Amino acid sequence: MSEDSFRRMWAELLPVGRSAASGGYRRHAWDGADAECRAWFREQAESRGLAYELDRNGNQWAWLGDPEAGDAVVTGSHLDSVPDGGAYDGPLGVVSSFAALDELRSRGAEFRRPLAVVNFGDEEGARFGVACIGSRLSAGVLSKEQAFELRDARGTRLPDAMEKAGYDPAAIGADTDRLGRVGAFVELHVEQGRYLTEDQPVGVAGAIWPHGRWRFDFHGEANHAGTTRIEDRRDPMLSYASTVLAARERARSAGALATFGKVAVEPNGTNAIASLVRGWLDSRAADEATLQRVVEEIRAAAVEHGGRDGVRVELTRESFTPVVEFDQVLRDRLARTLGGVPVLPTGAGHDAGILASAVPTAMLFVRNPTGVSHSPAEHAEEADCLAGVAALAHVLEDLACR
Amino acid sequence: MSEDSFRRMWAELLPVGRSAASGGYRRHAWDGADAECRAWFREQAESRGLAYELDRNGNQWAWLGDPEAGDAVVTGSHLDSVPDGGAYDGPLGVVSSFAALDELRSRGAEFRRPLAVVNFGDEEGARFGVACIGSRLSAGVLSKEQAFELRDARGTRLPDAMEKAGYDPAAIGADTDRLGRVGAFVELHVEQGRYLTEDQPVGVAGAIWPHGRWRFDFHGEANHAGTTRIEDRRDPMLSYASTVLAARERARSAGALATFGKVAVEPNGTNAIASLVRGWLDSRAADEATLQRVVEEIRAAAVEHGGRDGVRVELTRESFTPVVEFDQVLRDRLARTLGGVPVLPTGAGHDAGILASAVPTAMLFVRNPTGVSHSPAEHAEEADCLAGVAALAHVLEDLACR
Repeated sequence: MSEDSFRRMWAELLPVGRSAASGGYRRHAWDGADAECRAWFREQAESRGLAYELDRNGNQWAWLGDPEAGDAVVTGSHLDSVPDGGAYDGPLGVVSSFAALDELRSRGAEFRRPLAVVNFGDEEGARFGVACIGSRLSAGVLSKEQAFELRDARGTRLPDAMEKAGYDPAAIGADTDRLGRVGAFVELHVEQGRYLTEDQPVGVAGAIWPHGRWRFDFHGEANHAGTTRIEDRRDPMLSYASTVLAARERARSAGALATFGKVAVEPNGTNAIASLVRGWLDSRAADEATLQRVVEEIRAAAVEHGGRDGVRVELTRESFTPVVEFDQVLRDRLARTLGGVPVLPTGAGHDAGILASAVPTAMLFVRNPTGVSHSPAEHAEEADCLAGVAALAHVLEDLACR
Repeated sequence: MSEDSFRRMWAELLPVGRSAASGGYRRHAWDGADAECRAWFREQAESRGLAYELDRNGNQWAWLGDPEAGDAVVTGSHLDSVPDGGAYDGPLGVVSSFAALDELRSRGAEFRRPLAVVNFGDEEGARFGVACIGSRLSAGVLSKEQAFELRDARGTRLPDAMEKAGYDPAAIGADTDRLGRVGAFVELHVEQGRYLTEDQPVGVAGAIWPHGRWRFDFHGEANHAGTTRIEDRRDPMLSYASTVLAARERARSAGALATFGKVAVEPNGTNAIASLVRGWLDSRAADEATLQRVVEEIRAAAVEHGGRDGVRVELTRESFTPVVEFDQVLRDRLARTLGGVPVLPTGAGHDAGILASAVPTAMLFVRNPTGVSHSPAEHAEEADCLAGVAALAHVLEDLACR
């Protein structure tokens, strides 16, 4: 029974990388807890008699049928987490994929196309600052040269981290052949914004909002907090604060999202006026024109406030992902198969969003009653998760067994 | 000649603990660069035939005459720095003390009272978060028990750091006997707020403003920055930003100072709404009633904004130092000796402020043309520094040779 299989796998993963202090997960790419999750994935493949495969970018695959045959149906997600993330974001997709496969096999389904479960490496980008590294590399969206430049907070280079974890960084790069054998990719994921109501355990993704990260550097002048007269100060904390408030206002009036969630201050001493405040803006909107306008308005506000405070503002776009429209034929087929479930937009990036440029791709969402994610409080009801497994099994059967 | 001696000592200290990257100093208590400065101090004592003494709290003394005789005249400052601090804050006082002593001896001055140069340990509090640890311990303002609880950012306890540096932490505590033998303490320090004009190279301290540190904890809810609807957010970064701006406004209208220069964010991820923003407020005013009122107004603003943002605010007073009025007789004597130099207030804490409760204490300030301090850009003109040495020699002669 797929329900038992789901519950068993869920219970196995639950303690891995969980912080006793916060209750959140710390499964960061190539680290201890991430390695444990990866060992678990391999076990799941082997205990089911699936062919285990590690691709050149460290993504894990579990194959039923011949991987070389082509036109494969692939499902899966990721097992890493943001710092102190929740249990569902990523693992729900991987666990549901294995459970759906168990369900189909227990029913004696006959597979006409090869089927695989995949675990993409380093989806959250918590360690190296770039999200979806595994799928980006495979799709050729991130080059080997770019990847080799990435460093974590301790200064460890990505290739060194991979090598230390037992992988061969020399092999990484675009994986055109392997992706060419994929006929359809379906990722199941916990929904993240309260867009599904109580009678809607499952939805289908329409599009992923365009989104990006911008770094604002506010350059002021370090000085003594106890002796420097107010009129002599060039305090970048003030310009940062004004920009945080401006970002919320501009986003609200445009129906977009804008968040400052990460800050770095120099020298960051209680009795020192800061010399530099660095704030990272995450912004998203339904279309690219709106997003560009909102970011430009926030930039203008930052420069205006900086001018008043004697603070120089520098803006760097660290990443940008255009709008992703999922394959319309596949999306409609899923919605039809599942009897007219709702089609939702999402502001979050996913491996599915990266693969959509190379492969017909779709997503299923499982209801999130609070909308909380990227947090220890992230939750989904078991009944909704099981409805998700059933829906995924239904979809895989339609795609792989007809 | 005291000028040559000043220049030589200044050149010796200049490279110690200086960061090539920032040009600022990183001389943190008991660390490598601090140990080098302390070895230098000992050399200065011994090469001049002064009796070197290490007190129970790690403060260094260099004695001319009998330390046991009592009614001693003591001068000095500190050699440690804030992170990326300037060259003058602290070292100018120690170097000027030795140079003034050289000047008096070269003139053949006859000393009627014992005279000492002192280097107080860990004045800036950069490592353990409490300023003036050496003088506080000696004056009995900080207890041994409190000191033993202090930890640096890496979790190292103060006694372990002292022990590792070769000192005996078991001995620390109030040093009533030693301070009882001090008849007057004079600290020379670079001025830090542009309160001296071009024709005023030297001033005398009137009082130290009351000041304190308050930690504001803004508790919100971690969530995904790309999917959480604005109306579902409890973002503590917004309440923090509003409070930073409120602090500046309240301080300005009260003629006080209020600065947020240090921030810690959890989880501090670009695509995560923060669960916690911790901001440290440094505030100072000419009198305690004004200071209390300003901090209360900032607290009220924080709570009001937090209420609007769904954010809980917690306020902790981490330290508070009441107003320090320096000894009036000594201050007037200095001002008279120096021919009517200006008497200035200061917002900065000093070892002199701590000792003032136990010993007749005064301070000399050397002009700071930009007002910048606690920064690599901190500067004083050599001519003003030499005028400071001459003034200190004059004062020491008046106190120790008459």
